[in-house]
Amino acid sequence: MEDKTYAADIDSITRAHALIKPYVHRTPVMSSETLNSIAGKNLFFKCECFQKGGAFKFRGASNAIFSLDKEQAAKGVVTHSSGNHAAALALAAKLRGIPAYIVIPKNAPKCKIENVKRHGGQIIWSEANVQSREEVAGKVLHETGATLVHPYNDGRIISGQGTLSLEFLDQVPQLDTLIVPISGGGLISGVAIGAKSINPTIRILAAEPTGADDAAQSKASGRIITLAQTNTIADGLRASLGDLTWPIVRDLVDDIITVKDKEIIEAMRYCYEVLKVAVEPSGAIGLAAVLSNNFKQNPLYKVSRNIGIVLSGGNVDLGVLWKSLNN
Amino acid sequence: MEDKTYAADIDSITRAHALIKPYVHRTPVMSSETLNSIAGKNLFFKCECFQKGGAFKFRGASNAIFSLDKEQAAKGVVTHSSGNHAAALALAAKLRGIPAYIVIPKNAPKCKIENVKRHGGQIIWSEANVQSREEVAGKVLHETGATLVHPYNDGRIISGQGTLSLEFLDQVPQLDTLIVPISGGGLISGVAIGAKSINPTIRILAAEPTGADDAAQSKASGRIITLAQTNTIADGLRASLGDLTWPIVRDLVDDIITVKDKEIIEAMRYCYEVLKVAVEPSGAIGLAAVLSNNFKQNPLYKVSRNIGIVLSGGNVDLGVLWKSLNN
Repeated sequence: MEDKTYAADIDSITRAHALIKPYVHRTPVMSSETLNSIAGKNLFFKCECFQKGGAFKFRGASNAIFSLDKEQAAKGVVTHSSGNHAAALALAAKLRGIPAYIVIPKNAPKCKIENVKRHGGQIIWSEANVQSREEVAGKVLHETGATLVHPYNDGRIISGQGTLSLEFLDQVPQLDTLIVPISGGGLISGVAIGAKSINPTIRILAAEPTGADDAAQSKASGRIITLAQTNTIADGLRASLGDLTWPIVRDLVDDIITVKDKEIIEAMRYCYEVLKVAVEPSGAIGLAAVLSNNFKQNPLYKVSRNIGIVLSGGNVDLGVLWKSLNN
Repeated sequence: MEDKTYAADIDSITRAHALIKPYVHRTPVMSSETLNSIAGKNLFFKCECFQKGGAFKFRGASNAIFSLDKEQAAKGVVTHSSGNHAAALALAAKLRGIPAYIVIPKNAPKCKIENVKRHGGQIIWSEANVQSREEVAGKVLHETGATLVHPYNDGRIISGQGTLSLEFLDQVPQLDTLIVPISGGGLISGVAIGAKSINPTIRILAAEPTGADDAAQSKASGRIITLAQTNTIADGLRASLGDLTWPIVRDLVDDIITVKDKEIIEAMRYCYEVLKVAVEPSGAIGLAAVLSNNFKQNPLYKVSRNIGIVLSGGNVDLGVLWKSLNN
């Protein structure tokens, strides 16, 4: 029976998992006694930085691409994205043999642009603002008849990202809490639906930069808040919730932990020096949240023992990393 | 039937594997279509950077520690080492509940010293030369009755490192070539014996920095050559062959590929930006060798298709990495 409450449900996530399994990596879960002793908790890291394209985004993109019918698919797909979704969509499109038109703002990080190119995406530049990106994307849509695949406000994307939770709870059944980065809400929406369907008592916490805390403000005020501007090193976490992700975040995310950029940078360093894994700022925020004072002061801190952290992506220029460590 | 030709054989490696299995990680093998297309080969990376202690050294150290009889063990172990072996020995000793006395030269990298401390090793400082290290270690031996565990010139160590090859060939049976860093020769000796026992046609190539190419010179001249000084960023690859490792390297290592430091640094960058794995200079040298002109000009280049690369360790200060990238 399909649940029409939200844009995705456990059935759509399970179907997505069956559809994309041949294409996505079942990413490993890592742990570290050193980090456990620093956190005072058992931490389990779902390493989506090892996902194809370097981020979880490939799950949703694959589901969107492979669920298109043949005629739709032939015309290709288009998106405007700050990076990882774009690379993921290009890669999934290449696997299906269809064109991907990627509208990218001129100020996007270099390594993310190169990822799109490497995967054969056709880059179309826009100015670095939402209006220009949407205008350019609209023009491409009109000219090609391609299908728009939004980075997060799309049931196919939410279902695809949710497949991560099916794997994670299979790999570590004892998880009692998941900490997931929040931006537009596609990842955490899919994960919350998937995880709570399997284990209704599991807690879902979002991790958000203080300089882009629209989700925390939205939860507090009971409606979608968008920020006039954001200020965070986590370039993947600057988007606002959409009308499809907001109801899921409102109902299924238990709380939001906000963290400072310097906490994110320290978490990146731990990932590199202890886990030996390259994680981008947006990807390291879950570990930053677990180690933060904000979490220690949260009522859920004491009851969380086996914590799953989604290391959501690893696409980072070494130069950017270094600069951030020294500011 | 035991083979007395060398300090280790397939039986001692198999016994080591059974002994240390409860303590060591069976490290994952990673691959990347991007790196395959750059190399024009199928590359398989054995990620010993995810081994406990951050390097393959924990295999040999565990074998040495857990094969001590009870009485010997109680007096502890001592070593003088440039880093990863020291941390590994401290960690294995902690697991067995015995003391580890670690003689460390004052100029050792900070993160390696911290690894020793974190694992409970008792640090005893020496000057930054071999003579001082051996003198200090001798003094500790005399005072404590502890067992000296040499970083590589020891059959227990060679057998322990060789366990890596049993896993690797089980994980990727189609490997036709292995590329392994060479320094004192403990790792490559164990790997060569293990791998050639399982698959006698497999090729074993050593990767060595041009600034510390004593093994290449030794192979060329048919006897152990030691260098008056070395000059390489790969701090783990500055040792010379020992009398136990040399005969194995002489007989079972098919060739040695020397690479420049700038090739090592480029390989570290690939590991970080493409594989998303933190690898120290000594650990990245296998990839550097595969991508080098020296390999392309080697007679074995054409016949090598499925190449196993040992990413031997991941203990690197971010600061060191950055400096190396910008020199």
